[in-house]
Amino acid sequence: MKFNIALLAGDGIGPEVIDQAVKVSDAVAKKFGHEITWKPALTGAAAIDAVGEPYPDATHDICAASDAVLFGAIGHPRFDNDPSAKVRPEQGLLKMRKKLGLFANVRPTFTFPSLIDKSPLKKERIEGTDLVFLRELTGGIYFGEKGRRDEGETAYDNCVYTRAEVQRLAKKGFELAMTRSKKLCCVDKANVLETSRLWRETVQAMEKDYPEVEVSYEFVDAVAMRLVQWPNSYDVLITENLFGDILTDEASVISGSMGLMPSASMGSDIALFEPIHGSYPQATGLNIANPLATVLSAAMMFETAFNLPEEGAAIRDVVNKSLSEGVVTEDLANGEKAYGTQEVGDWLAANI
Amino acid sequence: MKFNIALLAGDGIGPEVIDQAVKVSDAVAKKFGHEITWKPALTGAAAIDAVGEPYPDATHDICAASDAVLFGAIGHPRFDNDPSAKVRPEQGLLKMRKKLGLFANVRPTFTFPSLIDKSPLKKERIEGTDLVFLRELTGGIYFGEKGRRDEGETAYDNCVYTRAEVQRLAKKGFELAMTRSKKLCCVDKANVLETSRLWRETVQAMEKDYPEVEVSYEFVDAVAMRLVQWPNSYDVLITENLFGDILTDEASVISGSMGLMPSASMGSDIALFEPIHGSYPQATGLNIANPLATVLSAAMMFETAFNLPEEGAAIRDVVNKSLSEGVVTEDLANGEKAYGTQEVGDWLAANI
Ligand SMILES: CC(C)[C@H](C(=O)O)[C@@H](O)C(=O)O
Ligand SMILES: CC(C)[C@H](C(=O)O)[C@@H](O)C(=O)O
Repeated sequence: MKFNIALLAGDGIGPEVIDQAVKVSDAVAKKFGHEITWKPALTGAAAIDAVGEPYPDATHDICAASDAVLFGAIGHPRFDNDPSAKVRPEQGLLKMRKKLGLFANVRPTFTFPSLIDKSPLKKERIEGTDLVFLRELTGGIYFGEKGRRDEGETAYDNCVYTRAEVQRLAKKGFELAMTRSKKLCCVDKANVLETSRLWRETVQAMEKDYPEVEVSYEFVDAVAMRLVQWPNSYDVLITENLFGDILTDEASVISGSMGLMPSASMGSDIALFEPIHGSYPQATGLNIANPLATVLSAAMMFETAFNLPEEGAAIRDVVNKSLSEGVVTEDLANGEKAYGTQEVGDWLAANI
Repeated sequence: MKFNIALLAGDGIGPEVIDQAVKVSDAVAKKFGHEITWKPALTGAAAIDAVGEPYPDATHDICAASDAVLFGAIGHPRFDNDPSAKVRPEQGLLKMRKKLGLFANVRPTFTFPSLIDKSPLKKERIEGTDLVFLRELTGGIYFGEKGRRDEGETAYDNCVYTRAEVQRLAKKGFELAMTRSKKLCCVDKANVLETSRLWRETVQAMEKDYPEVEVSYEFVDAVAMRLVQWPNSYDVLITENLFGDILTDEASVISGSMGLMPSASMGSDIALFEPIHGSYPQATGLNIANPLATVLSAAMMFETAFNLPEEGAAIRDVVNKSLSEGVVTEDLANGEKAYGTQEVGDWLAANI
């Protein structure tokens, strides 16, 4: 098969980790007889510097015309303490999500037996954790009307959801639950928010279409607790944009393997794959960043966007092999010999 | 001194734990020569059953005329899976906060050396944790306009903050930081939300009035992570209502001592004190609920509302003594002899 993949390296360590995912994807393509054409495009602070905005139209055109998007990381510290900066890398991210229609962010949290000791949680709490969040990504308070009144003294943000938005996200949740342990948790704040009540009633109405799925409803504050206490009690969780932002990040650290967690953002036409870690500016250019989350994002891409599970499995296998043979970057080296970002990528590609 | 204290026992285990706090408070009052008049009043599901609404005017009048409010817990499972129920206990809570003007929720998270093993976190992560959240409690998306349009197909919730609301909360944060390690973290989502940008710019403008306080600004998703990774790196945190709801609950479980965590909600005129745990319906009437969080809430009441630190310290001392001598309920008994809720309360009162 032939694929065009948009390649958005972004900022900080983005370009370094993306390079390794490209190497590994090319090796898989070669092995299985596929042909990948990579289409690099600018995004984030890098795009602001080059053309004055974080998600240029040219980048959008490349993404929209591709079969999938592979994304590194964006964000630069010079924007962080300036909330009033006119153009910020994050705006590019939001614009990209909206314009590509990436309404479902898929965020797995799982453990690697060999890395369980890295978790901040006690072993008996984290062991066996294997959950997936589906975060709604193009609605809610992120995209509602926002602004100031009373000469700037009052600020407002509007949170809006339509039933159709909830349905399409929840549908993905039910479908995913059917392929897993058939447990779905709808996370909301229905005791306070009207949008949450819409979420809950919409999901409740869909239950009859998936009689095998056992659905639970939990308040976002309760989930924030149980994720720390008994993460292994969850399977598939669906939630709105802002709750998802907070909870998926909380979930990502409990496994102790944040540097290994991939993600996908899916729309009706196209999907984007990216590591969940950030642009890690302090590590830029040092050849120390862990590329495994990006490499595993490429595995998700083969599996989900191209429907090629064997290719995905080949990548997962070689990642597991690198972990068990200790071919890892310093964050995972436990005081043993650490490999550079590039060396890990080379090793993975060579061992596919 | 003479005090009138409104006593809102509420639902579930509320009445049982409140009873113990009353015993202990009376013992302290006797020892230090104060006189407490308790003013019981209805709230929560109990009030809905009795008079049809969760925060009746009669209850409000009693609270408003008192020197402080001691609160148990509210909530009943029969309301939980019915988001459309016309009257819900939570509405009483929100109405109470608003009508009493309780704009600052003070939520400490600290550890007891003898209970450190109860934490889901590894010892080296949790040890030394001693942080306080100040959560804004009468504004934001909880109280903004909410509703439906398009024949119920679209739901909305408005998040609104004024600079004055941010200032009065932040002022308490700066003042609290001055009495502690002079570190203040402002938690927001200023990379996305306009209300967060108002928060951040308002706090930034106040920095000059507290030159000794070192202020940091972190995004809510980042804090959700770091609370699990390095909770002991935080001291005082200030945040808006919804973020505070999620993060304070997350923080409350990391210590492993949730059953011991007190809280205060402060306004300009009156303050309310309550355990952070819920109404724990399954345990109702079984004499097994841990009363220590409520007893420690009474200690906060003496310290904060009445400015009587010695009285507060007397309560804290006897609580520590009960922990070290193993006079505890079954949740803390570690398989040793467990005491009943009442027996713990009696022991505490007798040992003041
Ligand atoms: C950078 C920011 C706008 C973004 C978000 O909040 O969605 C990020 O935190 C994420 O989760 O991808
Ligand atoms: C019951 C609910 C309305 C309430 C809130 O969200 O404020 C509770 O979770 C709390 O934190 O006190």
